[in-house]
Amino acid sequence: MEPIIVKYVEKPELKDPVLIEGLPGVGNVGKISAEYLRDHLDAKLMVKIYSKYLPPQILIKGDGTVYLVKNELWYYKNPKKNDLIILVGDYQGMSSEGQYELSYKVLEIVKEFGVKKIFTLGGYGTGQISDNPRVFGAATELGLVEELKKYGVYFSQTEPSGGIVGAAGLLLGLGKVVFGMNGVCLMGETSGYFSDPKSAYNILKIVKDYFQLDIDMTEIEYRSKEISEITTQVKEEQKEEERKEDLGYIG
Amino acid sequence: MEPIIVKYVEKPELKDPVLIEGLPGVGNVGKISAEYLRDHLDAKLMVKIYSKYLPPQILIKGDGTVYLVKNELWYYKNPKKNDLIILVGDYQGMSSEGQYELSYKVLEIVKEFGVKKIFTLGGYGTGQISDNPRVFGAATELGLVEELKKYGVYFSQTEPSGGIVGAAGLLLGLGKVVFGMNGVCLMGETSGYFSDPKSAYNILKIVKDYFQLDIDMTEIEYRSKEISEITTQVKEEQKEEERKEDLGYIG
Amino acid sequence: MEPIIVKYVEKPELKDPVLIEGLPGVGNVGKISAEYLRDHLDAKLMVKIYSKYLPPQILIKGDGTVYLVKNELWYYKNPKKNDLIILVGDYQGMSSEGQYELSYKVLEIVKEFGVKKIFTLGGYGTGQISDNPRVFGAATELGLVEELKKYGVYFSQTEPSGGIVGAAGLLLGLGKVVFGMNGVCLMGETSGYFSDPKSAYNILKIVKDYFQLDIDMTEIEYRSKEISEITTQVKEEQKEEERKEDLGYIG
Amino acid sequence: MEPIIVKYVEKPELKDPVLIEGLPGVGNVGKISAEYLRDHLDAKLMVKIYSKYLPPQILIKGDGTVYLVKNELWYYKNPKKNDLIILVGDYQGMSSEGQYELSYKVLEIVKEFGVKKIFTLGGYGTGQISDNPRVFGAATELGLVEELKKYGVYFSQTEPSGGIVGAAGLLLGLGKVVFGMNGVCLMGETSGYFSDPKSAYNILKIVKDYFQLDIDMTEIEYRSKEISEITTQVKEEQKEEERKEDLGYIG
Repeated sequence: MEPIIVKYVEKPELKDPVLIEGLPGVGNVGKISAEYLRDHLDAKLMVKIYSKYLPPQILIKGDGTVYLVKNELWYYKNPKKNDLIILVGDYQGMSSEGQYELSYKVLEIVKEFGVKKIFTLGGYGTGQISDNPRVFGAATELGLVEELKKYGVYFSQTEPSGGIVGAAGLLLGLGKVVFGMNGVCLMGETSGYFSDPKSAYNILKIVKDYFQLDIDMTEIEYRSKEISEITTQVKEEQKEEERKEDLGYIG
Repeated sequence: MEPIIVKYVEKPELKDPVLIEGLPGVGNVGKISAEYLRDHLDAKLMVKIYSKYLPPQILIKGDGTVYLVKNELWYYKNPKKNDLIILVGDYQGMSSEGQYELSYKVLEIVKEFGVKKIFTLGGYGTGQISDNPRVFGAATELGLVEELKKYGVYFSQTEPSGGIVGAAGLLLGLGKVVFGMNGVCLMGETSGYFSDPKSAYNILKIVKDYFQLDIDMTEIEYRSKEISEITTQVKEEQKEEERKEDLGYIG
Repeated sequence: MEPIIVKYVEKPELKDPVLIEGLPGVGNVGKISAEYLRDHLDAKLMVKIYSKYLPPQILIKGDGTVYLVKNELWYYKNPKKNDLIILVGDYQGMSSEGQYELSYKVLEIVKEFGVKKIFTLGGYGTGQISDNPRVFGAATELGLVEELKKYGVYFSQTEPSGGIVGAAGLLLGLGKVVFGMNGVCLMGETSGYFSDPKSAYNILKIVKDYFQLDIDMTEIEYRSKEISEITTQVKEEQKEEERKEDLGYIG
Repeated sequence: MEPIIVKYVEKPELKDPVLIEGLPGVGNVGKISAEYLRDHLDAKLMVKIYSKYLPPQILIKGDGTVYLVKNELWYYKNPKKNDLIILVGDYQGMSSEGQYELSYKVLEIVKEFGVKKIFTLGGYGTGQISDNPRVFGAATELGLVEELKKYGVYFSQTEPSGGIVGAAGLLLGLGKVVFGMNGVCLMGETSGYFSDPKSAYNILKIVKDYFQLDIDMTEIEYRSKEISEITTQVKEEQKEEERKEDLGYIG
């Protein structure tokens, strides 16, 4: 079989489109963000990508029907700035090689549509619940670093120390080396212990600003507050427990 | 070497054949079901499939002779409804890629014989021994969902939550996406702790009804009752133990 | 790179040659046996096989020089019966696919030299130290089963229950399916806990008889006795320990 | 995608160049050594190598910009003896196959530039902190063994017993078998528990002597002393602890 099967649903004309990636990953921050964009911008499905580099699995919908796991490209015609091509999916590639092959194929496809710039969205797992999670950035060129700083993205000399693993990293890396594209990765600070809409909310605010998107943020704001309340509670319980442990240790 | 080696034993003319898959898996429910069909319908061997995606292993028969692990297709000319092509085997593919490649190859082969519909049989492991194990279903189209409901198949909005992994899933997924086939997966509820003929029996009753098969169910009924008695005993012993543990905990 | 690199040292004319395999495995029984044949029959190197399916490793000889890990074919012109091609090596293939590819390539090579029969040598790990380890067999056809029984090979209806994994199995399996060769696997019963020359000795006696080899068995007999003494001692110590444990448990 | 992507920065004319490899590995001894050569000889970048056999990862520089993980070849025109091509990189290949493919590709590239000899640099992990770590050697031919002995390289009959794994081994092994090159591996004795500049220093002294390099050793000497002090301290603390444990065990 072809290692990657590409099914075009539509081949739209796009205006200087930017690829926005949000596949499953740390805290599902990228996934939540990109799917929110897709759903609340009423984006349109353009490409379905199946591959033996994805898990051998079908997923079941509520009505009892199934679909083969896949990645998808959706487009949004943005009246104010660049059009968007949004990459979402059920999984990332399963192996290193699969990761490379899938990212390469996505870049080949979006190049056809004129993509020159890439935004990859993801989570930066710190293992700690932060009250004010920041959005870290890393870019393929200094110009983008400077530009994104103006939108409140935090560029650290040392973080994330392990680099960026998976599609969020590879799309930028291969995009630059092979396709001459530039791009930035936005990483929402997150504990990494659960799906984190608050971290996604922070990323979405930047994306909304940067692309001047007319997008309703009510729902993600609501989910963000909801998770804040839960984590606040969890943190208090943790502190309580630590106090008890400390007493136990001393006593 | 060719990654998959296909040996045709016979190329029969088949009447609107349906592929029925039952490879090893959870509780061996699919395997028991499909091998029961093969044996009790006196099906005929048509294709042997060897592959480097299967384990590097030979198996030994009682007479001291060996055979390379394989998958096989058997056919049954059904006088009342669709002919059947039954997929059985010693193993499923060892890796994700192997799973995809093997399922793809099987679909290529059965397409030659005119297959347009697929039944995959498997177990749905719940971790609990049920007195009345249900048969869950998932299908590639709503029509099949509705049709199978009439035969007592249970379509749940939430189960199995993890989707369907392996050949039982991939044959439906790739069958739909690449070969335009439709199909259904029948999953017999099972604990997943042992080979479960009772769960297979429930599946076989549905398959027998659906395809109007003239098949003797005595043996599987017997094995089903046998396992019921064992599991009933096990469950009672467990309860007994739990009672003791509870007492121990309190006392 | 070519996945498997074959270097011919010599292309001898051979008289109805039989392939004898002894790669590393359980108790290194096959390896010890085949290397003993090679060394004590003064066999000649004919083919070196390098491959990316072997570990990425070089080995160091006593003089400080190195060589890339490999498999090798050696030949022995046997005046009394079939000539032999002996397969030895530092490792077996690292992955399932590597196992298949390497076995396939070896079969392709030996077919050129007219091989129609295969003897694979290995260990059958029982987890227990036996005083009189048997040699189990499994063959591709009943004729060979019957023939080898006469040489004292033990064919069991149930053992080894897991079949035969690795080159010892695959050479027979692929040899039969793809190259129309027949063969037998001789498995020396062994604990599997250490390199077992005693088990190899038992195999060598059968191979010597079968091929009417003029081979000096003094050294392997010596190593066999040596290991017998060690294992007898170990077993006695174990019994002693068990006695103590039993006492401890009771007391 | 091409499994390995080679980007030439420059194609210099080189005088009987020798390949010097120092990729990440045990104690990062090879990496530290090769990068020291590159930096302190003011070597020039000639080739960048990207590959799906490397991790799917980008690394972040202090200024917020990123680069795809890669291997690199740098050259140094040596006025006194052979020119050098220095292989450095972020990672070695991730799988056995990747290791073979990457080493093969490097050999193909350097052959173009006339390389006939290879020095691979690495660490030999002993699990113990040595006061006077030796440099072990292993070579593809006896001539090199004898030659390197004169530079203080230690050739042992038994060490390293497991051979040499990874690029340091494969470049020699494949270099000899496929490209007819000769070479030596220099292995600095190291505990393997941390990056070891002291072990690298010992290797660099030999490389400096052998190639009559005009290289400033001040910095590596400094880092070597620094680590010596730390390890001396650690060893004393360990001894202290052992004393305490011994007392505890007796008392």
